[in-house]
Amino acid sequence: MATFGDIGVAAAFNILSALIFLIAFAFLRLQPFNDRVYFPKWYLKGLRSSPSHSGSFVNKIVNLDWRSYIRFLNWIPDALKMPEPELIDHAGLDSAVYLRIYLLGLKIFVPMTLLAWAIIVPVNWTNKTLALLSQGEAGLTYSSIDKLSISNVPFGSPRFWTHVVMAYVFTFWTCYALMKEYEKIAVMRLHFLASEKRRPDQFTVLVKNVPPDPDETVTECVEHFFLVNHPNHYLTHQVVINANKLSQLVEEKKKKQNWLDYYQLKYSRNRGKRPMTKTGFLGLSGDKVDGINYQTAEIERLTKEIAEERKRVKTDPKCIMPAAFVSFKTRWGAAVCAQTQQSRNPTVWLTEWAAEPRDVYWANLAIPYVSITIRKLIAAVAFFFLTFFFMIPVSAVQSLANIESIEKQLPFLTSVVEQPFIKAFIQGVLPGLALKIFLIVLPTILMMIAKFEGFLSISALERRAAFRYYLFNFVNVFLVSIIAGSALSQLDTFLKQSPKEIPETIGVAIPMKATFFITYVMVDGWAGIAGEILRLKPLIFFHLKNFFLVKTEKDREEAMDPGSIGFNTGEPQIQLYFLLGLVYAVVTPVFLPFILVFFTLAYMVFRHQIINVYNQEYESAAAFWPDVHARIIYALIFSQIMLMGLMGTKGIYEAPPVLIVLPVLTIFFHLYCKGRYQPAFVRYPLQEAMMKDTLERTKEPNLNLKGYLQQAYIHPIFKDDEDDEDEGFSMELDDSATVPTKRQQSRKTTPVPSRFSGRSSPALPEHDHEGSLS
Amino acid sequence: MATFGDIGVAAAFNILSALIFLIAFAFLRLQPFNDRVYFPKWYLKGLRSSPSHSGSFVNKIVNLDWRSYIRFLNWIPDALKMPEPELIDHAGLDSAVYLRIYLLGLKIFVPMTLLAWAIIVPVNWTNKTLALLSQGEAGLTYSSIDKLSISNVPFGSPRFWTHVVMAYVFTFWTCYALMKEYEKIAVMRLHFLASEKRRPDQFTVLVKNVPPDPDETVTECVEHFFLVNHPNHYLTHQVVINANKLSQLVEEKKKKQNWLDYYQLKYSRNRGKRPMTKTGFLGLSGDKVDGINYQTAEIERLTKEIAEERKRVKTDPKCIMPAAFVSFKTRWGAAVCAQTQQSRNPTVWLTEWAAEPRDVYWANLAIPYVSITIRKLIAAVAFFFLTFFFMIPVSAVQSLANIESIEKQLPFLTSVVEQPFIKAFIQGVLPGLALKIFLIVLPTILMMIAKFEGFLSISALERRAAFRYYLFNFVNVFLVSIIAGSALSQLDTFLKQSPKEIPETIGVAIPMKATFFITYVMVDGWAGIAGEILRLKPLIFFHLKNFFLVKTEKDREEAMDPGSIGFNTGEPQIQLYFLLGLVYAVVTPVFLPFILVFFTLAYMVFRHQIINVYNQEYESAAAFWPDVHARIIYALIFSQIMLMGLMGTKGIYEAPPVLIVLPVLTIFFHLYCKGRYQPAFVRYPLQEAMMKDTLERTKEPNLNLKGYLQQAYIHPIFKDDEDDEDEGFSMELDDSATVPTKRQQSRKTTPVPSRFSGRSSPALPEHDHEGSLS
Repeated sequence: MATFGDIGVAAAFNILSALIFLIAFAFLRLQPFNDRVYFPKWYLKGLRSSPSHSGSFVNKIVNLDWRSYIRFLNWIPDALKMPEPELIDHAGLDSAVYLRIYLLGLKIFVPMTLLAWAIIVPVNWTNKTLALLSQGEAGLTYSSIDKLSISNVPFGSPRFWTHVVMAYVFTFWTCYALMKEYEKIAVMRLHFLASEKRRPDQFTVLVKNVPPDPDETVTECVEHFFLVNHPNHYLTHQVVINANKLSQLVEEKKKKQNWLDYYQLKYSRNRGKRPMTKTGFLGLSGDKVDGINYQTAEIERLTKEIAEERKRVKTDPKCIMPAAFVSFKTRWGAAVCAQTQQSRNPTVWLTEWAAEPRDVYWANLAIPYVSITIRKLIAAVAFFFLTFFFMIPVSAVQSLANIESIEKQLPFLTSVVEQPFIKAFIQGVLPGLALKIFLIVLPTILMMIAKFEGFLSISALERRAAFRYYLFNFVNVFLVSIIAGSALSQLDTFLKQSPKEIPETIGVAIPMKATFFITYVMVDGWAGIAGEILRLKPLIFFHLKNFFLVKTEKDREEAMDPGSIGFNTGEPQIQLYFLLGLVYAVVTPVFLPFILVFFTLAYMVFRHQIINVYNQEYESAAAFWPDVHARIIYALIFSQIMLMGLMGTKGIYEAPPVLIVLPVLTIFFHLYCKGRYQPAFVRYPLQEAMMKDTLERTKEPNLNLKGYLQQAYIHPIFKDDEDDEDEGFSMELDDSATVPTKRQQSRKTTPVPSRFSGRSSPALPEHDHEGSLS
Repeated sequence: MATFGDIGVAAAFNILSALIFLIAFAFLRLQPFNDRVYFPKWYLKGLRSSPSHSGSFVNKIVNLDWRSYIRFLNWIPDALKMPEPELIDHAGLDSAVYLRIYLLGLKIFVPMTLLAWAIIVPVNWTNKTLALLSQGEAGLTYSSIDKLSISNVPFGSPRFWTHVVMAYVFTFWTCYALMKEYEKIAVMRLHFLASEKRRPDQFTVLVKNVPPDPDETVTECVEHFFLVNHPNHYLTHQVVINANKLSQLVEEKKKKQNWLDYYQLKYSRNRGKRPMTKTGFLGLSGDKVDGINYQTAEIERLTKEIAEERKRVKTDPKCIMPAAFVSFKTRWGAAVCAQTQQSRNPTVWLTEWAAEPRDVYWANLAIPYVSITIRKLIAAVAFFFLTFFFMIPVSAVQSLANIESIEKQLPFLTSVVEQPFIKAFIQGVLPGLALKIFLIVLPTILMMIAKFEGFLSISALERRAAFRYYLFNFVNVFLVSIIAGSALSQLDTFLKQSPKEIPETIGVAIPMKATFFITYVMVDGWAGIAGEILRLKPLIFFHLKNFFLVKTEKDREEAMDPGSIGFNTGEPQIQLYFLLGLVYAVVTPVFLPFILVFFTLAYMVFRHQIINVYNQEYESAAAFWPDVHARIIYALIFSQIMLMGLMGTKGIYEAPPVLIVLPVLTIFFHLYCKGRYQPAFVRYPLQEAMMKDTLERTKEPNLNLKGYLQQAYIHPIFKDDEDDEDEGFSMELDDSATVPTKRQQSRKTTPVPSRFSGRSSPALPEHDHEGSLS
């Protein structure tokens, strides 16, 4: 029961830390030696180069121009200035639409806040329930915040009808805003697809589960099948090669190369001492050997192995997977093939749109059909246990990590552990640390589960992981905070409660937790977002790498780690705020302004980051929007049911039946939107395809499409081989296909290993990169 | 708590009535004057003609050949003799697959019965729980049937593990049988589609929601769109015309014609008296006029109106709906168009496979997209209220229909009502009658809801109505019988109980209701099915019509009412038996043989009916199978959860966690089957299409496909106009397209009004034709 004063103190504290982050950022970003940390996107685009080319040495490191410090908040208007079409051009549609989620939050909650403060707050305020209660025998203490909430309205008061009416108004407004946004984004997507340059995935379909044929190789089989069944449209194809082992070797070599660079640099700085290393696990055990020699030998060995493996992969028929990227002469032909069933057996010759070449998740292309169902089952069960039982290992670690058990298990540490400072540290920090580490690793675990499930593109992996992260947050952040007790004990409670009681239990607890969530929003939303812009971890890592590894300009480019938006962690966080906003809109309207600050701040920060920092990993043309839309709808329905439960306890027995209409209407609104807009996100209209084909045919009648598509879908590991031809090829196409070339270039310059596991998350900056620790 | 003796009496009674029905049938079917009632299918096929052509007058009516009476049970081997491929040829794939549902029941339950009697029954029997209880103070009476059920196993006995293991065995067996059957039927469907003769719907796609264009008519718009977007494949199209009013007029004229025929026949038999009629409602009120003159005048008026309306419909652009049947040059082209999205706006240019011409539900073709969602919402709400609140009007009628209220409302009837016989009738029969009438009308109401929802083919309408009828049965037959109390009070109870308690409440009640359901199976399943074969209502109606209306051979053909399978009532009934069988398999295995008798009897009866009686209304090529499969799966999952609930009360606390694995596995089995087989039922593989196209091209290089398709999808009301050309046309095609011609012929000879509303239901023979009473 916090008072305005308490909230004010917390707010002041969080605003202060947010301000410190922002000022630190404003200062750091102006230093030239941080330039690659805060503006990597521009480097990747080739529009900015190292500041080393001009000025003195000092100027290279510190910015001495005092004028730039005066305008230290200029990044905000700068970030907001870029118009949306330019933003799409600059950072892709995915990023632009991602920003629109924040905007949607503002669109939904600004009118809601105004209305709630104009109507609900006065209705709540002008009661005396809490004041009377506090004068009564119980002597209940209450805070001014509770005076503004629904708790202040007396039992059975007709004033509750205000809340019912407002629930209707809020629902209609939310649905209206959602529909407008869905429509807008569907148009944006189609426009984007229509105005795009030629891209290989427009012509290409991924064919999985090619049935084995004793007389033909996979490539012959594919060719024959499509020549027969798409005679006028089939152009060419590329079989998928299982190069997982080769990728591993290459990655290993790269790591060793990094070590070698490190030792050589160390040696060049200190000629007197050869750097030594150990050959065992993580360089901690084993024989001590000369670092440079050892790594050189290792690299040589790997180079040989790689060459052998490369040869083997290319010739061994076992490495050819029963899948292929089939390209067509026209977009129409590809659209047709992707949307239709090919064979009478619906588990072979499965076709789907090929993802962009850089979006393909190569390792999953060989999973057979039957195992997909089993994998889905295992993934679902694993996620269930992860959600409801994750506290068990965490508590186990926590109980192990207390003083007594350490003293028992490792008696020789007793003297160390008993020292006051260390004791305090263990008692105070370790238990929290165990939980924190788990939460940091969680997105990686979820990505691993999604990978295990067999999705074929990185975008699909991220969407799936985001969905699961949202569910996890809902259970383990939202519900666990509302009702004290672990998720598991809740599950048990809910199994024992009736469908009528559950919304009542939760509904009644909601207004009581308002202050907790206000604090949560300030810590996680305000300070967290402000911390995001500082990019502390990439900053440190960049300077470490710069110091230890960087020799050439190319190394420096690789040391730059722009990261990407991190849809799988960012979107679930926004959704949590939508959920909180919708749940508290009617119950405790005081909550809404805090959400508004979050949406505003996050919008500005992420707009800046998207323009200056993040490097897009793939372009799915906003394919995630149906998920975003659906989750807001679920939050809305949840909030309605909870309000129903709450009203059931307030003595207004007509209110729940009136409120039950809302979820029914919302569900049908959702079905309508799904039918109306979703196809735009999963299918590709033939009309569009035909239009683009016709246009292209008239514009470039002599286009050599086969040449363009021939090499588009070779495994990235083989791309390096053909860099020379490739570059020549991309040069040749440069004017007609600027975007793909740019992307190719950026791919080459971005460090490869960080592509899958090492993505920075925008909003939980402390979580990122844990996946690439190994 | 019935004993074996009670069950024996009930069984004897029901077997007796079943036998009486069967003997009556065996006798009646041999009489030549019933020939058209019991063998209409052969008349429609043109393979049998009226017996009037040969023999004396007596021979025409009564069969005097004593030898045929000796073989009176011959219909059973006759019905079973026809091999399945011939059956498919004779009655269509739908009918053949419908029969396989009964066979599937046998496949699932025969091994289950054997196993259950070999293992579970001895395990249950060799306990003394009930014997001990009956000796105790409570003096519980128990029956020998209960001794065979799970109730006889003592609390906490390890013997319950037998039941758990058997639940696993039964689940795996059911899933295995289901999968085999799904596979088999998918193959049958594809084989059927592949071996079929040329049919217009193979080349045709229904395009809905053609966007309005100010400059073009709908037909121009469609032509341009498809010429642009399917340039190599588009052949021709027919716009859909709103002829609903015209159909009404034609139907009305037909009715008046019937009356005229009746009066003329009456007059011709009794020359002395002109038949009189009243002009008002149902001929009960209004002026008394000469029947023949009045009807003749009415018919003349209607003929004129019809001619005007026909002209108006053909010229008025308002009657042209924004929908069209678009035909393609190849099956490949049609398959592509049906499976892809055409326009960037996913709510216009919606394409789907055209149903067979005779399967199209014309009245729904003009519903716009937005209203579909609203209609769905209204239909769902209506069905919800129908299911849970239907008892309210029924009880209202029942309470009105008692003696006191009649005497109060209509005092002048007191003397009549007080007579003992009438009093007994009112008290005994009226309340039951109100419920019975509602249940008879129910399938018609469900069909109306489905029509309102906007489905475009009769097969889809029936599938939807079947789904709802199943739900209704589940709630109002199964659940209401298990737990006493109306559906509404149950809903209330379930809302108040926890998710853990609900399966316990139902699970515990299940073994206690075994005898009730055994009786139910005997009445509804045994005697009901035997009654079905007698076709009492069509028999009476045929002879009435024959006496009053029939003048020509053509009239006699129209008087014949073969009906159709009635998927919307028959399938839900079978599903109820699947549910009962699966639920009782582990709990009360005594139940299983009764189910087996039902499946055997029903299989024989329906095989006979399909061969000799029913006239197929449409051919959906077993498109209903995914529904059948899914419902058996749901029944299986329900039975597992109920068993879990029951076990929870039996003192075996490890059993529920072990059993919860079953529904999870079953759900994933369902997902697997859905992915593996369902596409075969909703999509048309391009490979198949291409094969058929290629074959046709080589076989008939000079085929005039445009001529063939031009008139295929005109509204049935306009078909009559063009009968002459039509017949010539179908003659011309006779050798290449026997099946369509036959169908056309049968359509012409079947009474048209009975097509939509007047379908006889196979299993609830007293329900049928209520829809066409008007």
